[in-house]
Amino acid sequence: MATDDTQPADGTVYLVGSGPGDPELLTLKAKRLLEDADIVLHDKLPGPKIIDMLPDDGCIDVGKRAHGDRTPQWEINERLVELAREGKSVVRLKGGDSFVFGRGGEEATYLAEHGVPFEVVPAVTSAVAAPAVAGIPVTHRDHASSVSFVTGHEDPTKPESAVDWGALAATGGTIVVLMGVTRLPLYTEALREAGMDPDTPVALVERATWPGQQVATGTLETIVEARDEVDISPPAVTVIGGVAGTRESVVEFLRNDYTPSDQHSDENTDD
Amino acid sequence: MATDDTQPADGTVYLVGSGPGDPELLTLKAKRLLEDADIVLHDKLPGPKIIDMLPDDGCIDVGKRAHGDRTPQWEINERLVELAREGKSVVRLKGGDSFVFGRGGEEATYLAEHGVPFEVVPAVTSAVAAPAVAGIPVTHRDHASSVSFVTGHEDPTKPESAVDWGALAATGGTIVVLMGVTRLPLYTEALREAGMDPDTPVALVERATWPGQQVATGTLETIVEARDEVDISPPAVTVIGGVAGTRESVVEFLRNDYTPSDQHSDENTDD
Ligand SMILES: C[S@@+](CC[C@H](N)C(=O)[O-])C[C@H]1O[C@@H](n2cnc3c(N)ncnc32)[C@H](O)[C@@H]1O
Ligand SMILES: C[S@@+](CC[C@H](N)C(=O)[O-])C[C@H]1O[C@@H](n2cnc3c(N)ncnc32)[C@H](O)[C@@H]1O
Repeated sequence: MATDDTQPADGTVYLVGSGPGDPELLTLKAKRLLEDADIVLHDKLPGPKIIDMLPDDGCIDVGKRAHGDRTPQWEINERLVELAREGKSVVRLKGGDSFVFGRGGEEATYLAEHGVPFEVVPAVTSAVAAPAVAGIPVTHRDHASSVSFVTGHEDPTKPESAVDWGALAATGGTIVVLMGVTRLPLYTEALREAGMDPDTPVALVERATWPGQQVATGTLETIVEARDEVDISPPAVTVIGGVAGTRESVVEFLRNDYTPSDQHSDENTDD
Repeated sequence: MATDDTQPADGTVYLVGSGPGDPELLTLKAKRLLEDADIVLHDKLPGPKIIDMLPDDGCIDVGKRAHGDRTPQWEINERLVELAREGKSVVRLKGGDSFVFGRGGEEATYLAEHGVPFEVVPAVTSAVAAPAVAGIPVTHRDHASSVSFVTGHEDPTKPESAVDWGALAATGGTIVVLMGVTRLPLYTEALREAGMDPDTPVALVERATWPGQQVATGTLETIVEARDEVDISPPAVTVIGGVAGTRESVVEFLRNDYTPSDQHSDENTDD
């Protein structure tokens, strides 16, 4: 199969998603751009295996700064514009897909405002892939005619929260929560208060496709306990809905390279 | 960068997504499996460019049968089991991601019930990629803390419809409708009746990343007219929400290979 041999364009920023973390889940285009771009700006979310593959020079980790805090978004935006104006081809690499809770939209707007041409390279989002590699389809004829991805970062007990958990429950579809390990007790309670059946199946999938992938399962009522028993920590997604219950019936025949034997591999997991 | 050189396992079915249609948006793993599997079962949704790349032998189009009707799902399920039992490595190739309105869940369940080992290979879903290549992020700090993917295939005026458009509207998040070209008038009306602002931006993206990609934009009130003017036909996704309005401010600087000049290319578009 022939692949494209176009060179990345000078003075252009590529907003590239890395997929969930398995280097084989990079797209052909992402791989080509990572190899051929003048410079790559990334953080830690692409995961240890993909980060290890990046060349040492021509690669900037914007995920953290000297004193352990994060590079603010405005600084990354400015950096992208500067590098492009120097005539470089720039890859901005994000975990998953840049346009799914990846701030790619803000970067695109900033680049356009500053007259910098950019390309968006879509990727495999963890919101679909993390459930999938655990054997969970986010939609299913028998269980869900819709799926909603939502941030678990906001405190649902605060009035300024932009997330309406009651409305999400009312859709009757699957709910996939990103950034939702810490606040799991708060939003599972909000969903139960909104009338969702406490026996609704729930699964947590941590570090999907990374060395150390872990899965915890339970119900809207028991999942907090399961999280603590399995010791799930970020990054992880929470899958809420009937589809989470189908895992049990398929997992015996589910094959992949992310099985429990990987969990204590000596690879550099860096967290 | 080294890629995995594992051979596909005999007697195993790989549920593989093709991404939206650009062959460069295949994952490295999908490409490897397409090259190395004994047999590939596919339909038309992977799009003309990817279908053209498939080898002539070892490749079965299950998208249609002799008299123009589709192969029923149960027949595909049985075929997968038979081929695996013959000891073949089998790829079931789907457009986008197999687990996003792709019936991958049903296939997984059937395979497990029949004792056939399978692997799920997640992919770039058109629900994210089609908006993205048109310059639209499905989530955005200023516009949407959630995004819902929903089927537009059901008639919202029928009581047995499983989709609650009112609840989707109430989430306040982005709504991406798949299989929703024909029923666009029905669900845009349902959303307005549920109290959604008629000025809410809406975009339709047809054949994203295929030769002949097209985009139509409007509002909840005007999008049906725009669909007919641009002559949007399936496959297309509908993006509803503030994010659809951001396209206008970035499109001048948005680069990709799917620009209007591709629209009348002489490639085999086969639809
Ligand atoms: C800022 S969001 C970015 C999401 C990303 N753009 C995507 O499309 O996957 C970070 C969240 O993504 C999820 N995530 C990313 N990679 C993951 C992985 N490999 N396994 C599980 N969750 C992951 C977690 O919920 C994490 O808190
Ligand atoms: C049966 S669903 C399958 C979705 C697929 N599994 C995915 O993840 O993209 C078919 C619908 O996907 C959407 N679709 C698939 N490929 C597309 C493309 N290249 N451009 C626009 N829409 C597409 C359309 O809404 C189409 O009606």
